[in-house]
Amino acid sequence: MKIGFLGLGNMGMPIADHLLRAKHDLIVWNRSARKAQPLIDAGALQAKTPREAAAGADIVFSMLADDAALEEVLCGKEGLSAGLRRNALHVSLSTISVAAAKHAARRHADSGQRFVAAPVIGRPEAAAAAKLSVLAGGAPEDIEYATPALSAFSQRVFHIGEKPESASLVKLCCNFMILAAIESMSEALTLAEKGGVPRAKLLEVLTGTLFDAAVFRTYGPIVAEGKFRPAGFAATLGLKDMRLVSQAAEAERVPMPLLSLLRDHLLQTIATEGEDIDWSAIGKAVARNAGL
Amino acid sequence: MKIGFLGLGNMGMPIADHLLRAKHDLIVWNRSARKAQPLIDAGALQAKTPREAAAGADIVFSMLADDAALEEVLCGKEGLSAGLRRNALHVSLSTISVAAAKHAARRHADSGQRFVAAPVIGRPEAAAAAKLSVLAGGAPEDIEYATPALSAFSQRVFHIGEKPESASLVKLCCNFMILAAIESMSEALTLAEKGGVPRAKLLEVLTGTLFDAAVFRTYGPIVAEGKFRPAGFAATLGLKDMRLVSQAAEAERVPMPLLSLLRDHLLQTIATEGEDIDWSAIGKAVARNAGL
Amino acid sequence: MKIGFLGLGNMGMPIADHLLRAKHDLIVWNRSARKAQPLIDAGALQAKTPREAAAGADIVFSMLADDAALEEVLCGKEGLSAGLRRNALHVSLSTISVAAAKHAARRHADSGQRFVAAPVIGRPEAAAAAKLSVLAGGAPEDIEYATPALSAFSQRVFHIGEKPESASLVKLCCNFMILAAIESMSEALTLAEKGGVPRAKLLEVLTGTLFDAAVFRTYGPIVAEGKFRPAGFAATLGLKDMRLVSQAAEAERVPMPLLSLLRDHLLQTIATEGEDIDWSAIGKAVARNAGL
Amino acid sequence: MKIGFLGLGNMGMPIADHLLRAKHDLIVWNRSARKAQPLIDAGALQAKTPREAAAGADIVFSMLADDAALEEVLCGKEGLSAGLRRNALHVSLSTISVAAAKHAARRHADSGQRFVAAPVIGRPEAAAAAKLSVLAGGAPEDIEYATPALSAFSQRVFHIGEKPESASLVKLCCNFMILAAIESMSEALTLAEKGGVPRAKLLEVLTGTLFDAAVFRTYGPIVAEGKFRPAGFAATLGLKDMRLVSQAAEAERVPMPLLSLLRDHLLQTIATEGEDIDWSAIGKAVARNAGL
Repeated sequence: MKIGFLGLGNMGMPIADHLLRAKHDLIVWNRSARKAQPLIDAGALQAKTPREAAAGADIVFSMLADDAALEEVLCGKEGLSAGLRRNALHVSLSTISVAAAKHAARRHADSGQRFVAAPVIGRPEAAAAAKLSVLAGGAPEDIEYATPALSAFSQRVFHIGEKPESASLVKLCCNFMILAAIESMSEALTLAEKGGVPRAKLLEVLTGTLFDAAVFRTYGPIVAEGKFRPAGFAATLGLKDMRLVSQAAEAERVPMPLLSLLRDHLLQTIATEGEDIDWSAIGKAVARNAGL
Repeated sequence: MKIGFLGLGNMGMPIADHLLRAKHDLIVWNRSARKAQPLIDAGALQAKTPREAAAGADIVFSMLADDAALEEVLCGKEGLSAGLRRNALHVSLSTISVAAAKHAARRHADSGQRFVAAPVIGRPEAAAAAKLSVLAGGAPEDIEYATPALSAFSQRVFHIGEKPESASLVKLCCNFMILAAIESMSEALTLAEKGGVPRAKLLEVLTGTLFDAAVFRTYGPIVAEGKFRPAGFAATLGLKDMRLVSQAAEAERVPMPLLSLLRDHLLQTIATEGEDIDWSAIGKAVARNAGL
Repeated sequence: MKIGFLGLGNMGMPIADHLLRAKHDLIVWNRSARKAQPLIDAGALQAKTPREAAAGADIVFSMLADDAALEEVLCGKEGLSAGLRRNALHVSLSTISVAAAKHAARRHADSGQRFVAAPVIGRPEAAAAAKLSVLAGGAPEDIEYATPALSAFSQRVFHIGEKPESASLVKLCCNFMILAAIESMSEALTLAEKGGVPRAKLLEVLTGTLFDAAVFRTYGPIVAEGKFRPAGFAATLGLKDMRLVSQAAEAERVPMPLLSLLRDHLLQTIATEGEDIDWSAIGKAVARNAGL
Repeated sequence: MKIGFLGLGNMGMPIADHLLRAKHDLIVWNRSARKAQPLIDAGALQAKTPREAAAGADIVFSMLADDAALEEVLCGKEGLSAGLRRNALHVSLSTISVAAAKHAARRHADSGQRFVAAPVIGRPEAAAAAKLSVLAGGAPEDIEYATPALSAFSQRVFHIGEKPESASLVKLCCNFMILAAIESMSEALTLAEKGGVPRAKLLEVLTGTLFDAAVFRTYGPIVAEGKFRPAGFAATLGLKDMRLVSQAAEAERVPMPLLSLLRDHLLQTIATEGEDIDWSAIGKAVARNAGL
C-alpha cells in the first residue's frame, strides 16, 4: 500500500516505523524535517509538504498535536486535502475535538475524499510495542480498508460508529475516565496516609481486589510515590483534553460535575506546580489541600 | 475451634455456613432467632444472647448492620463483651466507622479481650462462593490466629495494620472508590449517549482497554442498562458508608471534593427515586440531570 | 422579670449586661464562675448550678457553645430542666442543630415547661450595641412573653414558626449564606487580582451596585486584605455549623453542592492554616489554589 | 457631540434614546433597520452600515449580542473601524470576553483610534430609567471624554483600569457573583422548604438582616416563587457569560469550583427545562434534585 504519514512526534514516529517494517511504501512529512531522518535511512521517502505526502497515496495517516495543527495541515494550497486524490483515505490518529472531527469529515467529503477518525489509546511505549488500541469512527468499508495498516501498530481496532466524530467522543471519554480514576485514588490515598495507613498498602488492596486494571496499576504507584516529573502526559495537555470534553458536554447539554472538578484540580496543579508536570499531579494538589 | 457468630443477614448467613462446613463448633445468635434455623438443622447451636454465644468461644465473629448494632451487641449485661473470656478474640466483619473500631478495640482491651476489625470485600454471592477478601486490622498474632477460620469463607486476607481502625479506614476507602468509579462511568456514558454513541459501545472500549477490572465489569452493565432495582446494595447504605468516610475525612482534615459529589448524588437519588434502589442509581440522577 | 442566664462567653456577657441594665432581676451561671464578676458587681446574683439559676425564674436564657454544652446544662440533677418551674420558659440563644432543638423542645414539654429557640444574628459588637436580630421559633404566646426581654439586646425579632427547630434551621441557613458569599467573593477577587484588577476595585464595584449589603461590606475587606487573624469567628466553629447544615440537609434529603464545597474549603483552610483563623480564610485557600 | 450608535436591542434602544434626548447628534445603525424607526422619528439619522454610522462621529457606542457580533461590526470594508476617523473613540457597552476586549483595543490602536470597554450593570428597566452603572476600562482621558455622554443614561461611572479588558473582567465577575447569590439562595430556600419553613420567611430574614442588597431583593422572590418565565436574562446567555468567565479563569490559571458548579446547574436547567427560561431557574434544578 502507498501510505503518507504526517507528524513524527513521540507517537507518530514509532507508528510510522511499524508501517515501514510492514513493507508499505511510506512517504513522510514533519514540520521539522530533520526528525524524519531515521525513517528515510530505513527506506521511507520524505515529502516537503503535506500535499506532496498525500499525492498518490492510498491512505494518509496524521498524528498531530491538536485541532489547530490538524486544521493547518489539512487546508491551504500545500495542504493534505489539496494533494489527496478522490476516493483516497485520510485516517486521523490524534485526539481531536468532536467539532474538529466533524469539520474534517465534511471537508474531505466536499472533495470526494474519505475520512476516518481513529484516535489511539496507549503511550509511546505501547506504540513502540505495536500494542495500541485504535478507536475507529467512519464508514465500515473505510475502516476495513485501513485495518491491515492499522494492524501494523495496534493490537485491537474498535469500530465505534459510522460518524468519525463518534471516535473522538469515545477517546475523550476515555481520557476523562483516566483522570477520574487518578482523582479518586488521590483522595483515597491522602485519607489513608493521614489516617495512618501507608499509601502502598491501600494500593495493594485496590489492585488486589476490585481495581485490578491497567489504569490503577499504571497511575497508582505514580500517585502513591509522587513521581510526577518528568511528565509522561503533561498537565497542560490534560487540561486541553478536559476542555475538549467540556466543550462536547456543553454542546450536548450534559452536566459533568466530576469533569468540572478535574479541570479545577488541573488548573490548581498548573498554577502551583508549573506546566512541566504530569497530569496525574492533581494527586499532589489533593494532598496539599489536606496539609501534606 | 469453638466459634460464636453474631448476625445472620445476607452476608452473615453464608459466612456462618462456611464455618460450619469447615467443621468448627458453631454457636450462633441473631436478633430474629428464626433465621438461624437452617444452621441449627445443619448442626450449629443457638444462643439466646450475644453473651451466651460468646461464652467459651475461642473466636466470636460479628456481622452486623452498622455502628449502632455493634454497640448494642457489644455492651450491656447480655452483651458479647460480658460473655467473652479473657484473651478470647472478637473479629468484627462489618463495615464500621473508624471511631467505632477504635471504641470496640479499647473496650475489649479494657476487659483483657482481643479484637480484630476484619471488614470484607464482596457481595453475598462472593460470600456464598467463599471468595471474599478480608481486610484485617489488629495485632499480627491475632490475625494469624483467626486466619484458618477466615480462610473458610475468603480467598485472600490482607493485613492492613496493627490498629483495628486501619482496616475500617481501608474498607471505607474501597467503597468510596467503587462509587467514584460508578460516578465516572455515569458521566461518560451519559455524554456518549447524548453524543450518539451507544452506552454498550463505550463500555466495551473501557473494559477492553485500561479499565478491565471487576468494578467496571460489574457496575458498567448495571449503569449502562439502568438496572437499579432490586437493590444489591441500597442507596441508603451507600449514603451511610459515604457519611462514615466523610466523618473520617473531617477528623483527619482531608478535603475530598469527589466524595462530596458522591454524597450529593446519593441524596438526589434517594430524594427523587426513593430508598429501595441500588447505590449505583446515581447513574440515573446523572442521566436525568442531562435531560435523559 | 426574674431572669436566669446561662453562659457568659463573648456573646452571652453583653446580652446579660443589657438585661441587667433593663432592670430585670438577673441570676447568672457560667462554667467558670469568675467571668461573672462584672455582672455581680453591677447587681446580678450568681448561681452555682444551672438548676439554681433556673429556680424561680420566669425566663431562663442560655447562650452556650454547642449542642453538647446545651445537653449538659439542660439535663442531670443539677441541670436547668430540674430547676425550672412548670410553665416557665427557656429561651436558647445559641446556634444549635435542628435535632438538638427538637430534643430540647420535647424534654421541656415532658416537664410541663416551655421552650423557644431564638438564635441571634450578629457578632459581639452587635450584641454590645443591642443590635442583634433574633430568630424566634416556638409558640407565639411564648415568643410574645419573651419579647420585652429580647428587646433589651436586639433591634428586631423575627417569628420564624411554631416549632423551635424552625429557628435553628433558619439560623443555619443564614450562616451557610454568609460563607457562600465569602466563597463567591474569594473566587471573584482572586480572578480579578490575577487578571490585573486590584481587589479593592472589584469590591468597590460590587458594594457600589448590586451587592450593597452588610455581608459584603463586612467580609469583603477582610477577604480583599487577607486579615484572617485574629479570628472573629473561628474556622473550626464555621466547620461545625456547616456540619449542622449538612446533617439537616441529609435528614431532609436535600443535595447542597455549594455547601459541600464550603465544607471542603474549610477543611483545606484548617489543614493548611491551623485552627486559629477566621472562617473567611477560605479566601486564602482559594487564592493559594490559584498560585497566589 | 456627534455620536454613532450600533445595536438597538432591548438595552441599546433605551440608551440611544437617552443620548438623543440629551441633545446629541445621533446616527444609528441596526442589523434590522426597521427597529430604528422610533429614533428616526425623534430626530436621529439612520446609517446603512457601521462604517457610515462611524464616519464623522466623535464617539461611537456599540451594544451588541456577543463577541462574534462585535467582531463582525468592527471589521470588514463596511465596518466600524473602516469608518471611524483617527483619534475618534469607540465605546463598547456590551459584555464581551477579555480576549475580545484586548483584540478590539489592539485593532483600534493599529488604526490610530481610541477604545474604551464600558459594559453596564442593569436590566432594560434600569436603562430606561437612566440608572445604569458603567464599568469603564481605558485611558483616563478617553473615559473622561465619554463621561458626559455616559451620564445621559447612567447614574454612576466606575473607572476600572487603563486596560479596556479590565472592565470586561470586572463585568464578568459581577455576573458570576449574581449567579452565585442565586445558587446560594436556591440551596438555602430548598432546605428551608423541605424542613418546614416557608421560602418567603427565610427570604424575609435574609433581606432583613445581612443580605439587604439588590441582588437578593431582585432574585430572591423570583427563586422563592419560581417565576422563571418569561426570561429576563435567558439561561443560554447566562451560560455564555459563565463560559467567558471560565475562559478568563483558565487563561489566568484560577480554579473556580463555584463557577464550575454554576455552569453545571445551568446545563442541567437548559437540558431539562429548555432554553427559554431565566438563568435564575438554576433554582428549579436545585429544588428538583431535592425531589421537589
